[in-house]
Amino acid sequence: MEFEVRTGRGSYPVYVERGALKKAADIIGKARKVFIVTDSGVPEKWVDMLKVQFRDAGLFVFPQGEASKNIQTWSAILSAMLGAGVTRSDTLVALGGGVAGDIGGFAAASYMRGIRFVNVPTTVLSQIDSGIGGKTAVDFGGVKNSVGAFWQPAAVIADPDVLSTLPRRQFSSGLAEAVKAGIIRDPQLFAIFEKDDFADHIEEIIRRSLLVKKAIVEEDELEAGSRKLLNFGHTLGHAYESLLGPDACLHGECVAMGMMAMLDSPELKARLAKILERLGLPAKCDADPEKVLDLVRKDKKAGRGRITAVLADAIGKAYLKDIKIEELRGRLAR
Amino acid sequence: MEFEVRTGRGSYPVYVERGALKKAADIIGKARKVFIVTDSGVPEKWVDMLKVQFRDAGLFVFPQGEASKNIQTWSAILSAMLGAGVTRSDTLVALGGGVAGDIGGFAAASYMRGIRFVNVPTTVLSQIDSGIGGKTAVDFGGVKNSVGAFWQPAAVIADPDVLSTLPRRQFSSGLAEAVKAGIIRDPQLFAIFEKDDFADHIEEIIRRSLLVKKAIVEEDELEAGSRKLLNFGHTLGHAYESLLGPDACLHGECVAMGMMAMLDSPELKARLAKILERLGLPAKCDADPEKVLDLVRKDKKAGRGRITAVLADAIGKAYLKDIKIEELRGRLAR
Repeated sequence: MEFEVRTGRGSYPVYVERGALKKAADIIGKARKVFIVTDSGVPEKWVDMLKVQFRDAGLFVFPQGEASKNIQTWSAILSAMLGAGVTRSDTLVALGGGVAGDIGGFAAASYMRGIRFVNVPTTVLSQIDSGIGGKTAVDFGGVKNSVGAFWQPAAVIADPDVLSTLPRRQFSSGLAEAVKAGIIRDPQLFAIFEKDDFADHIEEIIRRSLLVKKAIVEEDELEAGSRKLLNFGHTLGHAYESLLGPDACLHGECVAMGMMAMLDSPELKARLAKILERLGLPAKCDADPEKVLDLVRKDKKAGRGRITAVLADAIGKAYLKDIKIEELRGRLAR
Repeated sequence: MEFEVRTGRGSYPVYVERGALKKAADIIGKARKVFIVTDSGVPEKWVDMLKVQFRDAGLFVFPQGEASKNIQTWSAILSAMLGAGVTRSDTLVALGGGVAGDIGGFAAASYMRGIRFVNVPTTVLSQIDSGIGGKTAVDFGGVKNSVGAFWQPAAVIADPDVLSTLPRRQFSSGLAEAVKAGIIRDPQLFAIFEKDDFADHIEEIIRRSLLVKKAIVEEDELEAGSRKLLNFGHTLGHAYESLLGPDACLHGECVAMGMMAMLDSPELKARLAKILERLGLPAKCDADPEKVLDLVRKDKKAGRGRITAVLADAIGKAYLKDIKIEELRGRLAR
């Protein structure tokens, strides 16, 4: 399966297909010189499967985890690229989860003022979410994603086969973003989680999630408006992540709890709770509500004490609403 | 005088006008929060003239010179911006020469994935040349401009009045780029240098030079083709700069000698030599030709031993030609 994502500067193809990694060079161009950026958590078999397809492939492996997403790792990648003689006409390939895509993408965006970038996401989360959209960044000065660029990939290659080596908990956590996509825009995607075996339907789940993101990103490439819908469950989710720490509570787990708090209809809450149970994801966060509110205020630098909340009264129909941060208090108590 | 530069993503105005700095806030927006990036070589009176026009203006001053154009200075600017609470809707204003524009522009391009950038060039060189074009960068890993972004300014404000504090030698050196613009595309601009007092005509010289650059940059925003014309005199100029050092030979002085070597017609050479004499710029470089050739090979990573040379048989009509680097040897001997 392949579709195109349109951007302000043309479009790029997204491949979602079992076995796609084995044929990546057909998409990237066999004759090309590539520089692969990956992390230590990606099994060697996937790195080798990609690397052997090229005559001339540089490789940079950084330590797995969000802590690597900084200017030091980024400049070490740029140094290695200079050392490998990467030119303006070569291609940087990011192979890994969201961190590899973010930091590899920013290296591609800034090396020689920008070179070709191909993203090969290897986690559920990055395949269905961060793999497209053109946002690249590193954390800096204690602020997440404070330095980066909008840099569109030349192609995204999502191979569901590589998910076979993903730990069970990461697999489930990643699916929280697919559930989110269903709630925002796609009732049929939501229905898969209510009725079907999601491991069997992983290809369709990835495809449908990406199509939701694609539609919204195309509407709003530079994140001025409707792209905020993609933050459903994330305002509280991010606060939970900060409060509990990324190891105690994975991103998708935090988003799961964040989504529950943003639904008002008891019927919708019950349906979502059932899905989260099937996925083994938590529904309710025990964190101190006052600490959560403090973090939301800090995160948004919300001087006015207000935020744009993403709400949903029906599956597939999320909307934006400007609310007081104080109003979140009641949601945290439920 | 004001004109628009078109880019792939809209257009921006360029103001060339005596007294423009005093009214910069009218262009930038008085109510805006701005963060000014400048260098220690810019007289305080110009910094103050800009700063007092805003209620809320951050300021970062880095040490004057190309040596500051690195990732350390860039990340210090980003840190200061975070500390000053600069948000995605604020504006970075670069006030200074080419280094301020390059490093300030790259900070604007990468802070929060890109914020509004206004360039206020304060040297002849930056007013007529690097002020427009959207190229931002820092030097990294021993390679000039190896890390950066294409990031278009929201506006460029060139005030010829600020040139009054520029040292004489820098003033003349900057004009070499205007002579270059004349040779590439504008016989009337070239004629000013042959006949008129260039200090009296500085506003027209800046305007005409910018219009040449604007036309070429618009044709070729991402530097795939005709933008290479702007490199007239620069292939050898850069080699001279590396060989002699930036203090012994200013950029424009090196370009002057580089241009002489690329002209074939004796009549054109004589006309250019006369202009360089009027400007107090050197016409011939004594550097060892073998060392110069080595540097050209290294600079272009020219594995094939060839480069795209910019040549001119008539004033206003430069053209590109693929030549062997060896062919430069004869030009160096003349």
